[in-house]
Amino acid sequence: MTIKVSIDASGGDHGIPTTVAAGIKALNVFPDLQLVFVGDKSSIQTELNKHPSSQKLSNRFNVTHASEVITMDESPSNALRKKKDASMRVAINLVKDNTVDACVSAGNTGALMAISRFVLKTISGISRPAIMGRMPTMSGHTHMLDLGANINSGPKSLVEFAIMGSIAVKYTENINSPTVGLLNVGEEEMKGNDNIKKTSELLKASNLNYIGFIEGDDIYKGNIDLVVCDGFEGNIALKASEGVASMMGHYLKQAFTKNIFTKIIALIAKPVLKDFKASLNPGQYNGASLLGLRGIVIKSHGGADVDSFFQAIKEAYLEAQVKITEKIATQVSLELEKNSE
Amino acid sequence: MTIKVSIDASGGDHGIPTTVAAGIKALNVFPDLQLVFVGDKSSIQTELNKHPSSQKLSNRFNVTHASEVITMDESPSNALRKKKDASMRVAINLVKDNTVDACVSAGNTGALMAISRFVLKTISGISRPAIMGRMPTMSGHTHMLDLGANINSGPKSLVEFAIMGSIAVKYTENINSPTVGLLNVGEEEMKGNDNIKKTSELLKASNLNYIGFIEGDDIYKGNIDLVVCDGFEGNIALKASEGVASMMGHYLKQAFTKNIFTKIIALIAKPVLKDFKASLNPGQYNGASLLGLRGIVIKSHGGADVDSFFQAIKEAYLEAQVKITEKIATQVSLELEKNSE
Repeated sequence: MTIKVSIDASGGDHGIPTTVAAGIKALNVFPDLQLVFVGDKSSIQTELNKHPSSQKLSNRFNVTHASEVITMDESPSNALRKKKDASMRVAINLVKDNTVDACVSAGNTGALMAISRFVLKTISGISRPAIMGRMPTMSGHTHMLDLGANINSGPKSLVEFAIMGSIAVKYTENINSPTVGLLNVGEEEMKGNDNIKKTSELLKASNLNYIGFIEGDDIYKGNIDLVVCDGFEGNIALKASEGVASMMGHYLKQAFTKNIFTKIIALIAKPVLKDFKASLNPGQYNGASLLGLRGIVIKSHGGADVDSFFQAIKEAYLEAQVKITEKIATQVSLELEKNSE
Repeated sequence: MTIKVSIDASGGDHGIPTTVAAGIKALNVFPDLQLVFVGDKSSIQTELNKHPSSQKLSNRFNVTHASEVITMDESPSNALRKKKDASMRVAINLVKDNTVDACVSAGNTGALMAISRFVLKTISGISRPAIMGRMPTMSGHTHMLDLGANINSGPKSLVEFAIMGSIAVKYTENINSPTVGLLNVGEEEMKGNDNIKKTSELLKASNLNYIGFIEGDDIYKGNIDLVVCDGFEGNIALKASEGVASMMGHYLKQAFTKNIFTKIIALIAKPVLKDFKASLNPGQYNGASLLGLRGIVIKSHGGADVDSFFQAIKEAYLEAQVKITEKIATQVSLELEKNSE
């Protein structure tokens, strides 16, 4: 089976040089992958020519021209209404008309969500798509949604997130019955607001492997496969976590560059510090899924470098391979049937 | 001026040995401090006898017996209704009857909040107290509230938090006009829910030094003096941050203990790693304020050791010294007058 992925080549902070290099890497790694690079055709061609392997791979990719680019600070509604020939939109259109199985973009998140919803629509039974990402833990990684697509999610939406996330984790990670935790301010039943208590009741009554409330620090302990939360809390938790990681990196660097002696120690400790950084490398977790759409759309971090944009392509490839959209649609319709009985 | 502080000696995971040792340390550091240790009198006396300096300090502390202890997992309502002679309650009563200027407890947070509200009541114009804590940043520390006392805070409550927090930061940190940021999922005006947008409008119209929306990672950048948020998000951000810090500590330790070579490097790098740990030592930020009460109540982390419980006593001492309760009451009544004009 061939997996076809469209790439919004012009999207992201670094644009075509990065997305094309990552695409070439992905083609070299996954023999059954085919790519469509979308963006300014001549710039993409120029970039492709810089990669020696692109010639022998040329029967596995093509370039689709798009005349516009959505900027990172553009309003989603403006991008949706006015930029019909943006690289992002054209890349999503290719999912819609089944030319490709998935799309990857490092562009404006709000615009990606708005255009994806407009072009692809949501799966029947899903009110709004949610953004699911992977997060590092003490023993590997976990998944968390929603990371910021929805604010003020009610119990029905949160349960939808749990269903969609469970299916995605089940098939992309090969975990038969992923454990699901609901993010709250305490683990006791009495903790939290009415919204979260009602959600917990619904999750208990579901077929999901729901383990109950979890707290913010539980995200990183490595004993939960899926963390469910509203996008407001999810985004704040994600950004706060990034902030702490940066701060700790800053203090670690400061300690090792304080004076000539600490700098010598830094040289000696270099392999260990490199090993430490590798274990936490956020790039390896790049590629968040816009779950709930009638098609696979993967959001890369805007500042992704070649290796981390490659991870986002890999995520698209894996989700397309297991046909995640169909799996979610089937499960959601089963749940809806069950609830209507 | 003498500052008097009551200590819930039996509270916390480590109880009397830790709280008494921290109290003795505080008496040695602050010559104008007086303490009342509250808890089982004979256990406290036994512990005091272990400290050589307690004899010469004996005219600066006394012990008040309390026959009960509130456990860490007890329900706040049960603690409030049934344990009238708990060390925590007696310590708070001493604030109420003006025997002391402030109270410190490492006990059950929910019970501390419930008993404090019941015994002390809130300042006129303040609907609910909020928990404010200090958080490390790249350039020192910042303050954040609410860290979990209130869930579903409306615009009026969030503005109250901002007023109380600004006053507390102004007087305890000597910052004339502390910058205030409102935690949201983006910095643009259009971001967030109606609640947060309305709060932002109110803060713009206030006399506070409001700088607008901030994101989770901004907490740790060191350019905001006060972070305002609902307790649900605040608690999740705090716990998620603790989780990331633990995880990074875990990976750092793992990298340095991997094999005999990395262990030798760890020995060489020991002073640098110690320096790094010291710069992030969470104990130095121990001591969260229950702002909005008619009296000063400081919550210590339950697992606090002697040094970090000392920090909580220091926080109580500093707030009592600047008469934070009166300062907040005055400012709140001014704001209320302004709004009723």
